[in-house]
Amino acid sequence: MIKIGLLGCGRIGQVHARSIDQLDNVRITAVADAMPAAAEALAAKTGAKVLSPDEVINSPDVDAVVIGTPTDTHFDLIHSAAAAGKAIFCEKPIDMSADRIRACRTAVDAANVAFLTAFNRRFDPNFANLESRLRDGAIGDVELITILSRDPSPPPVSYIKTSGGLFRDMMIHDFDMARFLLAEEPVQVFAVGAALVDPEIGAAGDVDTAAVTLTTASGKICQISNSRRATYGYDQRVEVHGSNGLLRAGNVLENTVEIAGAQGFQQAPAQHFFLERYEAAYRNEMASFVTAIQNGTQPSPSLHDGLRAQVLADAAAASLESGLPVTLPAE
Amino acid sequence: MIKIGLLGCGRIGQVHARSIDQLDNVRITAVADAMPAAAEALAAKTGAKVLSPDEVINSPDVDAVVIGTPTDTHFDLIHSAAAAGKAIFCEKPIDMSADRIRACRTAVDAANVAFLTAFNRRFDPNFANLESRLRDGAIGDVELITILSRDPSPPPVSYIKTSGGLFRDMMIHDFDMARFLLAEEPVQVFAVGAALVDPEIGAAGDVDTAAVTLTTASGKICQISNSRRATYGYDQRVEVHGSNGLLRAGNVLENTVEIAGAQGFQQAPAQHFFLERYEAAYRNEMASFVTAIQNGTQPSPSLHDGLRAQVLADAAAASLESGLPVTLPAE
Amino acid sequence: MIKIGLLGCGRIGQVHARSIDQLDNVRITAVADAMPAAAEALAAKTGAKVLSPDEVINSPDVDAVVIGTPTDTHFDLIHSAAAAGKAIFCEKPIDMSADRIRACRTAVDAANVAFLTAFNRRFDPNFANLESRLRDGAIGDVELITILSRDPSPPPVSYIKTSGGLFRDMMIHDFDMARFLLAEEPVQVFAVGAALVDPEIGAAGDVDTAAVTLTTASGKICQISNSRRATYGYDQRVEVHGSNGLLRAGNVLENTVEIAGAQGFQQAPAQHFFLERYEAAYRNEMASFVTAIQNGTQPSPSLHDGLRAQVLADAAAASLESGLPVTLPAE
Amino acid sequence: MIKIGLLGCGRIGQVHARSIDQLDNVRITAVADAMPAAAEALAAKTGAKVLSPDEVINSPDVDAVVIGTPTDTHFDLIHSAAAAGKAIFCEKPIDMSADRIRACRTAVDAANVAFLTAFNRRFDPNFANLESRLRDGAIGDVELITILSRDPSPPPVSYIKTSGGLFRDMMIHDFDMARFLLAEEPVQVFAVGAALVDPEIGAAGDVDTAAVTLTTASGKICQISNSRRATYGYDQRVEVHGSNGLLRAGNVLENTVEIAGAQGFQQAPAQHFFLERYEAAYRNEMASFVTAIQNGTQPSPSLHDGLRAQVLADAAAASLESGLPVTLPAE
Repeated sequence: MIKIGLLGCGRIGQVHARSIDQLDNVRITAVADAMPAAAEALAAKTGAKVLSPDEVINSPDVDAVVIGTPTDTHFDLIHSAAAAGKAIFCEKPIDMSADRIRACRTAVDAANVAFLTAFNRRFDPNFANLESRLRDGAIGDVELITILSRDPSPPPVSYIKTSGGLFRDMMIHDFDMARFLLAEEPVQVFAVGAALVDPEIGAAGDVDTAAVTLTTASGKICQISNSRRATYGYDQRVEVHGSNGLLRAGNVLENTVEIAGAQGFQQAPAQHFFLERYEAAYRNEMASFVTAIQNGTQPSPSLHDGLRAQVLADAAAASLESGLPVTLPAE
Repeated sequence: MIKIGLLGCGRIGQVHARSIDQLDNVRITAVADAMPAAAEALAAKTGAKVLSPDEVINSPDVDAVVIGTPTDTHFDLIHSAAAAGKAIFCEKPIDMSADRIRACRTAVDAANVAFLTAFNRRFDPNFANLESRLRDGAIGDVELITILSRDPSPPPVSYIKTSGGLFRDMMIHDFDMARFLLAEEPVQVFAVGAALVDPEIGAAGDVDTAAVTLTTASGKICQISNSRRATYGYDQRVEVHGSNGLLRAGNVLENTVEIAGAQGFQQAPAQHFFLERYEAAYRNEMASFVTAIQNGTQPSPSLHDGLRAQVLADAAAASLESGLPVTLPAE
Repeated sequence: MIKIGLLGCGRIGQVHARSIDQLDNVRITAVADAMPAAAEALAAKTGAKVLSPDEVINSPDVDAVVIGTPTDTHFDLIHSAAAAGKAIFCEKPIDMSADRIRACRTAVDAANVAFLTAFNRRFDPNFANLESRLRDGAIGDVELITILSRDPSPPPVSYIKTSGGLFRDMMIHDFDMARFLLAEEPVQVFAVGAALVDPEIGAAGDVDTAAVTLTTASGKICQISNSRRATYGYDQRVEVHGSNGLLRAGNVLENTVEIAGAQGFQQAPAQHFFLERYEAAYRNEMASFVTAIQNGTQPSPSLHDGLRAQVLADAAAASLESGLPVTLPAE
Repeated sequence: MIKIGLLGCGRIGQVHARSIDQLDNVRITAVADAMPAAAEALAAKTGAKVLSPDEVINSPDVDAVVIGTPTDTHFDLIHSAAAAGKAIFCEKPIDMSADRIRACRTAVDAANVAFLTAFNRRFDPNFANLESRLRDGAIGDVELITILSRDPSPPPVSYIKTSGGLFRDMMIHDFDMARFLLAEEPVQVFAVGAALVDPEIGAAGDVDTAAVTLTTASGKICQISNSRRATYGYDQRVEVHGSNGLLRAGNVLENTVEIAGAQGFQQAPAQHFFLERYEAAYRNEMASFVTAIQNGTQPSPSLHDGLRAQVLADAAAASLESGLPVTLPAE
């Protein structure tokens, strides 16, 4: 039985609590949240104790912590948990600063604890199936990747202002997906973008529509595009063109019903809500973390993966700022 | 809080237990099964007491019973539960004999208890969405319905022998779906069939491949076909042709991944396992039962619906036997 | 160079003239039509001479005749052409009477001339591809066939009255498709139908919505449904369920454009006009006739195929009339 | 009756001859080709006279010329035809040098003759339908365009060497499509590329895999990717993300047949041959040219469109060379 301390009992913390509830051999023993009511509510559901974050981390009744608190608290919590020798599951982004993520990596490596960066999309059954077939050589060598991500609607401008910008807040998922599928580190990033959805987003110094080109040393190319708006649902598609064929993963529609009339044949929109769309992904992600702890192996995606996605997001932001491609050093 | 007594702790009983676990305001308080180990296992998971069926039915701590025992026990359990004034959720078929189902109806009507016949497919989000749009007039009047059902592989011949035959065991779901969508009672049934999948099924007096034509008094037509084998998954499709268009619900594929190569574009097979395919349907079915009890309304599909599907199955079997169409009296 | 005499210069005659124009080694040398203007117009386009039907048939400058005249003239034209030793391409139906078709067969067999019954759908690239893969064993043995045909809108009631009825006028194509794909003669026909689209069609003694079940001696089943109305285009689908899988041919949509919005993802309607939908089929049909003449082989579908489709249509009409299945003798 | 002089009787010249043959009120009166046999063959089919290019251009029996000769001859032929006052249909690219195209534009403008640059894809029924709906506001304002083009297999390296490179030879179609759909001039081009398909293409100084990002002054973005290889057919897709939805045009598959088995559901590959894929586009393109001449309007795409696509290709090549985005001046 793996005993989990849950740090953060907000929306994402509750998602992880549900995933843990559906897994065997794991349970939540302690929870903490800056909002006492949130912690109490989750404690009532799970039978966990409400403690302070430090108490959770240092509890002998906690083997691993799941960090779902605000991003600016991750740094300290990771350092404490590493010092306490606890396995760590940390929501993305690990931190807004790549250098601070590197510091976390040093602490985690020194403590030799398990660490999973919670890029949930790697665990979506569709994307995971695609990646697995790609690894098995189903379409030969990767040559061109196209990633399209569109959110149903933009977050409030107040959120945008503290989000770190589209590249660090939204496209970071696509940067991780690109690295997952390329299986080779991008060496160059070129970004363009504009505020086409909402001029207030532009006034806040961000873009809501953007496109990035990544290239690797061997010449592989990945094109990513993002929009903060999609009238037809949560649009998340990946397409890999390889030497022997094409692999792609499409949207999950609300249902399989089709209606036909004079205008043609109409299928349902894509599922709109990311928690519904990625329900299985969240469950598989937690299962993968628990299995790694049980087997004594390193979870994936790693802290390094979390760092590299952040480095790509930083480079994209710099490219948009300068108008020039940005070259990435290896690390 | 609705308190449920679960009669039958086998595979389908466990499915219903999981559904109940995911609903608010309802819990299992008592379980019974002819196999003590099965009852104990489910009791351990749910915190329910293990009792005899009679004790479950008569427990003051039970508001409603969920009957998932072998078909030949339904008749007595329904009578006892009705006598005890408990709401009843009963797996299909209610009984192999239409006359005995009529006797159950008399008992249930006399006791004025809630009764749901568990035709799970009505609660599948896809079929439910289709039916709801049909009712809303999305394609005008129903004219022609096509229902195709194919199981991944036939059950053991030993099961076939006691199953009541393909029409009562498998196509009964399609008969209920036909009534659900026609919204008008079929008045004639014509059936053909053969043992094409496995000659042993034929030797056992049954068919594994069959087609039925239903007609209503106003001239609406429904064609159903069944096969006990489908290499590409659990195939369940419905198509309604109406005066203003077409509505259809397709299969649920294993994932959204597509691969393209010299042979063309390939999508995943249909989900193979009915418990996975109809997971949401089972959950919605139980939620609908609980809501009806809470609201004091009659659940649907009713005992009458269970009876009429059985009458259609009997008529199809008689038509296959005689080679002639069978006319159905109203009731 | 094969020299063609075209009998009938109406819409279908013009279709065949266009097909001939696109083929090498074949040209129209003579045309005839009861309407002189129609014959003159086609003669002007093709460089053919305008003659009487008898002159066309007996012209030394004519190797083969294409019969596209009204159905009631086919009998005499076939007899004359057979007597003159000319190859014959004849529009369906060959005749409204199966016995008269048998008489034509006697004459054609005696004269030993090539004869093609113009069931154009066998030559549609989609249906032809499906049939060819079926023959190659792509899905093992045929078990269940589903054929759905819906016309965009009914013909005028005046046409209905002289059409021979839905089974002989519309479903005859599906009867031929069923025989093409079953590769085994149906031995029983059961039909139901109603006038749901237009009560005037019912008043004229016909149905506009119908369903037929065919069975073969080995137990194979074919379900056919027809409607005289489809708001979403010309709907022609075929699905074959076999021991190792499924083969199906879908509709041809007007274009590949898809639009997505709050209502979902919408594709174009099916092509509405049969001459557009089956343009390639008509061309391939004529090419097949010409190739058979050049190679000295018998064209397909044969006069026997034309007869058997008519026999099935007659049986369906008799079944609808009697309400009982009709058994077919072999011939 | 429009009288056409056909300059160039090779593969593309024969395509245009077939298109003309299917149109009313237009015919080919004169042909020319550096290979006498090619000219003679086409003359035999069409009844045209074989002349020298100059004779064709200056023939009083020629209203318009169709230029399908090698690219390096276009400049002189355009100047001669403009001087002779003939309408001009010219294959793309007009010339490999943007400055020489500007010189052609000066000559054509001075002569005030009709000129169509033969970007055939604008006339594909699918892309044309998409563009027309876009213009009608079906999805609001254009924000992001994704264009994916993949050829079934690379041309011979000998061809590559004189082709002007992937951007001018292959992606030029996509540059024109981008301008067609953006309806706003791109102001910046960024290109990446590599020789991943065949190292000999790299040795010849070209790339076979490339991606380009275009941006407009108002912030609209277009991502294009090209590969010289696709195992699954001729892959040509366009997707436009707008403020109110999505419009996309997909591939044309070889047929509508689908086969299902244990591996899933498989559709046909995309049509492989561009002359088959764009058969209707070539016909519509010629019809549009002829209609413009008849109506005395300017054909589209114009010589200016031909120039701008070439300017974009030049900029992409420069961007690939420098590794930097290239800014485009207006003209």
